[in-house]
Amino acid sequence: MTDDLRREGLIAPAPAAPGSEGADGADQLGSPARVDLTFSVAGAPAPRSIRVPPGVTVFDSASWNGIAIDSTCGGHGTCHKCKIQIDNVVGSINGQRHEIPVSRHDAKTFTPDQLAAGWRLACLVSATRDLTVDVPPLTTRPKAATVGVGRQVILRPGLQKRYVELAEPTLADQRTDLVRLLDAIDDLELTVDLAVLRTLPTVLRRDDFKVTAVISDEALIDVEVGDTSKIRYAIAYDLGTTTVVATLLDLETGTPVAVSSMLNKQQPFGGDVITRISATMMDPEALPRLQEAAAATLRELAAEVCAEGGVDPGHVYEVAIAGNATMTALLLGIDPEPIGVAPFVMSTATFPPVPATELGLEVHPGARAFLFPSLGAYVGGDIVAGMLASGIDRDKRTRLFIDVGTNCEIVLTDGDRIVSTAAPAGPAFEGGAIRCGMRAADGAIEVIRLSATDLPDGAEPVTLQVIGDVEPKGLCGSGLVDAVAELVKVGVLDSSGRFIPEEQAKEVAPALADRLTRIGEERVFVLYRPTPDAEPGDCVVLSQRDVRELQFAKAAISTGWSLLLTELGLEAGDVQQVLLAGSFGSYLSPASAVRIGLVPSLPVLRIVSAGNVAGEGAKMALLSVRERAGAIALLEEVTYVELSDRADFNDRFVEQLAF
Amino acid sequence: MTDDLRREGLIAPAPAAPGSEGADGADQLGSPARVDLTFSVAGAPAPRSIRVPPGVTVFDSASWNGIAIDSTCGGHGTCHKCKIQIDNVVGSINGQRHEIPVSRHDAKTFTPDQLAAGWRLACLVSATRDLTVDVPPLTTRPKAATVGVGRQVILRPGLQKRYVELAEPTLADQRTDLVRLLDAIDDLELTVDLAVLRTLPTVLRRDDFKVTAVISDEALIDVEVGDTSKIRYAIAYDLGTTTVVATLLDLETGTPVAVSSMLNKQQPFGGDVITRISATMMDPEALPRLQEAAAATLRELAAEVCAEGGVDPGHVYEVAIAGNATMTALLLGIDPEPIGVAPFVMSTATFPPVPATELGLEVHPGARAFLFPSLGAYVGGDIVAGMLASGIDRDKRTRLFIDVGTNCEIVLTDGDRIVSTAAPAGPAFEGGAIRCGMRAADGAIEVIRLSATDLPDGAEPVTLQVIGDVEPKGLCGSGLVDAVAELVKVGVLDSSGRFIPEEQAKEVAPALADRLTRIGEERVFVLYRPTPDAEPGDCVVLSQRDVRELQFAKAAISTGWSLLLTELGLEAGDVQQVLLAGSFGSYLSPASAVRIGLVPSLPVLRIVSAGNVAGEGAKMALLSVRERAGAIALLEEVTYVELSDRADFNDRFVEQLAF
Repeated sequence: MTDDLRREGLIAPAPAAPGSEGADGADQLGSPARVDLTFSVAGAPAPRSIRVPPGVTVFDSASWNGIAIDSTCGGHGTCHKCKIQIDNVVGSINGQRHEIPVSRHDAKTFTPDQLAAGWRLACLVSATRDLTVDVPPLTTRPKAATVGVGRQVILRPGLQKRYVELAEPTLADQRTDLVRLLDAIDDLELTVDLAVLRTLPTVLRRDDFKVTAVISDEALIDVEVGDTSKIRYAIAYDLGTTTVVATLLDLETGTPVAVSSMLNKQQPFGGDVITRISATMMDPEALPRLQEAAAATLRELAAEVCAEGGVDPGHVYEVAIAGNATMTALLLGIDPEPIGVAPFVMSTATFPPVPATELGLEVHPGARAFLFPSLGAYVGGDIVAGMLASGIDRDKRTRLFIDVGTNCEIVLTDGDRIVSTAAPAGPAFEGGAIRCGMRAADGAIEVIRLSATDLPDGAEPVTLQVIGDVEPKGLCGSGLVDAVAELVKVGVLDSSGRFIPEEQAKEVAPALADRLTRIGEERVFVLYRPTPDAEPGDCVVLSQRDVRELQFAKAAISTGWSLLLTELGLEAGDVQQVLLAGSFGSYLSPASAVRIGLVPSLPVLRIVSAGNVAGEGAKMALLSVRERAGAIALLEEVTYVELSDRADFNDRFVEQLAF
Repeated sequence: MTDDLRREGLIAPAPAAPGSEGADGADQLGSPARVDLTFSVAGAPAPRSIRVPPGVTVFDSASWNGIAIDSTCGGHGTCHKCKIQIDNVVGSINGQRHEIPVSRHDAKTFTPDQLAAGWRLACLVSATRDLTVDVPPLTTRPKAATVGVGRQVILRPGLQKRYVELAEPTLADQRTDLVRLLDAIDDLELTVDLAVLRTLPTVLRRDDFKVTAVISDEALIDVEVGDTSKIRYAIAYDLGTTTVVATLLDLETGTPVAVSSMLNKQQPFGGDVITRISATMMDPEALPRLQEAAAATLRELAAEVCAEGGVDPGHVYEVAIAGNATMTALLLGIDPEPIGVAPFVMSTATFPPVPATELGLEVHPGARAFLFPSLGAYVGGDIVAGMLASGIDRDKRTRLFIDVGTNCEIVLTDGDRIVSTAAPAGPAFEGGAIRCGMRAADGAIEVIRLSATDLPDGAEPVTLQVIGDVEPKGLCGSGLVDAVAELVKVGVLDSSGRFIPEEQAKEVAPALADRLTRIGEERVFVLYRPTPDAEPGDCVVLSQRDVRELQFAKAAISTGWSLLLTELGLEAGDVQQVLLAGSFGSYLSPASAVRIGLVPSLPVLRIVSAGNVAGEGAKMALLSVRERAGAIALLEEVTYVELSDRADFNDRFVEQLAF
């Protein structure tokens, strides 16, 4: 499954920045907003340049960007392995001569000649100016995983294990059990769970003070007898309104062990977030029931992936959950009402680490759940996870990210600034309010090709691709977009979205004209006739009203991204890549999306289905504390633009109605 | 009850230190270990000098020592009320001229003339050298409470309430509920309980965004509708092995509202810590049962004091618990076995804030329990609380603190260093292993006076004071000490602790000689005969073996303090005050304690019963975050001396056996 989601090579290497030897010092005011680091990695075809905030260590900068530098201590200055050579070890800042300082550890590791030649330990060098760095060949192969949209993540999970062998206490050494243990893990400042204190005396003495500490970020959550350091798992959840996906990850190798999905058990309360919020407003018992339904979904999925992977649920020490703001609130039992009504306010955008047991999960009792933060009531944690997975803030290209659904989330970056908004697209894409609409399940038409005239080889002028290869029963979102796009292409729909008169259709599209008919007063186009003489009411059709629904939805979305383009002073043609996310976006035909104007008019190769980016982001948060920090940093980096507050929204909307 | 425990004026004002204008700079190495602050308080008879670590603010230094300076913001630099005048605003550090800096807030508050004259805001002045400070009259009367051994505590509870009126959200102001609230409390960096996030949307909207935030240290534990800022309570527990005392405190006024005590429900498992630890070693079910017994004790006491005080238990937002290391471990469900066997190791000396609900308490669900840290397996949190209450680290006198019990804890300070140890006194003081021993309950002889000869007024040569004024049934610890002391005084016991021969008794103490008899082979002294012809076995007697038990106990204790005196290079006569703590110590006659050598031979006025100092310390921790920090700081300040590891212990012990 991960392989399916990989989009190798989607991220172009950033252009190599010049070494900037510091002659520019005079015109700089204070420290630069960003510094450029150029890495020449042994064995790599070309140098790679990255941009980081000043003060970040060279090791961290590399690690954030998937450039591997030797290390066994993870950048704590203790292993002395992260050796690099800095070409411009002497440079300048603000016109002043600046030499990268030699730390105590550097002095122990390198000879004076080596130090003069620019050798340093990468984890101790702060990037305060542009640097050109040579990275020697790796002596140890760092563990890394490819996740998200072709992103390489160096494994550094927030969940660590440390095996230690402690000296037994004596009358001359009465350190407490806890101090004895913490003294052996003195590179971390740990808080300690009460549960650990309870069992610590017994656990330490069961096997001669040989134990494995289980550490979640900065909390000691368990101490296990003997060496269990290789056993550590976590579960990444994509908590969708419709579908929930769980991936069991082996944190030791970074690989998925098992994946499972099921419908969100909140479904009986309504298909979308608004109906679920409404349920809590009408019945005080609904919130606890929705909370338990979400918990039951996560719990069953955990049991499934553990069973499938042959993993003891007690060895699942952490979970990450990417859900929209409403799903996250309901899971936590937070009253969602203010999210549902203007002015659309969340209880909170960020969450403390929550004990997984508080969410009803049956994993390790000390496990924490990391909940993705939300940018706004309608740009939730799922989108933040998606931005993380697509590396929206790590790329210098102009990119547009669209998660298509009932609520459509849009993110635009020019490689520097990032803006986002939410557009209320309505239920068209999920099959709602569409006469023959249905979810993307067996029997749904998902691809449609139309020909205006009979084809020379006698092939049908209407070609359908149906999920499950069964008889067509209805039309899912991608089929809807295809149908409209193809009807516009062959001229049966005009650019205002109106079916052309039947007489005119006979001229414009003779092979299709007999399919343009009516049900009652409403004009419809027959996509599939079960029998040659079936009544239109028994056929799979696209109605005039369906076209209007889609038209409004796509207008809402394109108004969203066009306003964001204006916000950043860009034209549609500037966009170098469009990422279509969400289960719907992934199935959408790029050509059709362009044709109806759902996305900017661009070469189809620039339009990419990104897959389940929310789930990928959740995995990344478990595999790397750096990536998790990156997700939280997005809250500061991204500007949320509220559309319902914009004076120019309606004008734009009307402009965008046309196909 | 609190009044009973007050010992006003026990702490002598420290000698006023000279202003030390800084001419001594040349011979100082770096910053001084301590700096002297001399406060002249308006209306006070004489200046007062205190000693603090360099860098502490003048406001905090004063507050720590019960000197009141105006403030409504509690030292956060926002109220501009803590005005002081520094006489030596210009001085020197290490021979360098040093002027107390003028902060941004100072510049706003004072005129240039005032600044030149040394006026500053006390909360923004770091004491980096000796300072002489004038404190103007108070414009507001600060709340303070007298607790502990005559200590004045300025109220600054860790549990705060803040009433705020927030702007309602709009489309232009979509800050989350949490950010909206936290923006209004921006002088604190708060963590937020999940329970708060759950109810926040509802609570904010119930009364137009007027709410009261409930803050425990740095955690937001609740948000209440409307203004509840005056309602805040806490419970201080003295968790004794035998007796548990709960005091309900009104944190708004600093006064106790209700007090209640009961026997520790762990009693059925054994009378002392060792038998309770043994119980857990023999039966795996004992630990959870002991834990629940402790919880039930605290829970019932909470219900009692709340009922007595007419306080809703939901308004109890914090508890503090002072117990010895074993009681604390059992309450938390920590396996106590390693405390009970050599080398006597605790699971931990310090504890994270524990949810009170985890301890089985039925108070506010967000309430935290502060558990006093322990210095060693046998110098526990009760002693740390006692040290806090007696201000052992805030006084320049040479003082000895002795908590007398089965395990006896001893602390000695020379006004600078503090050392402590534990002496295994055995059960004598609690009535165990004593033929007619009993607890200090009705019928126990607690005071004894003997006369060697018949008294001229015909009064009895034996005078007994009995608890409850009932017929004597036995002898409690203080009675035991009195009996032995008086018998030594009249010469019936020789200095080796042996009853003198009966013939000799007739000469030495004719009025008492007939009371010296035998039960079987053992010699006994009859203290009380129920009938004139009662057999010795039916009388309340002191046996030769009882004398030996007490002799061993007092030898252990006096070995303890004599080794501590040696440790600090002191003689017994140097001790300026002896504090006798614990329920037993409080009842002990100072004269008898001196006579048997339980305490150094000093004028009896220097020997003071300190009362229930553990309970007082627990109150202080609730009334003031400064005092709580002081309790934790004691762990660093006090050196624990392990006696069982000392080569010279046995020699000293034999020396100390004699009366």
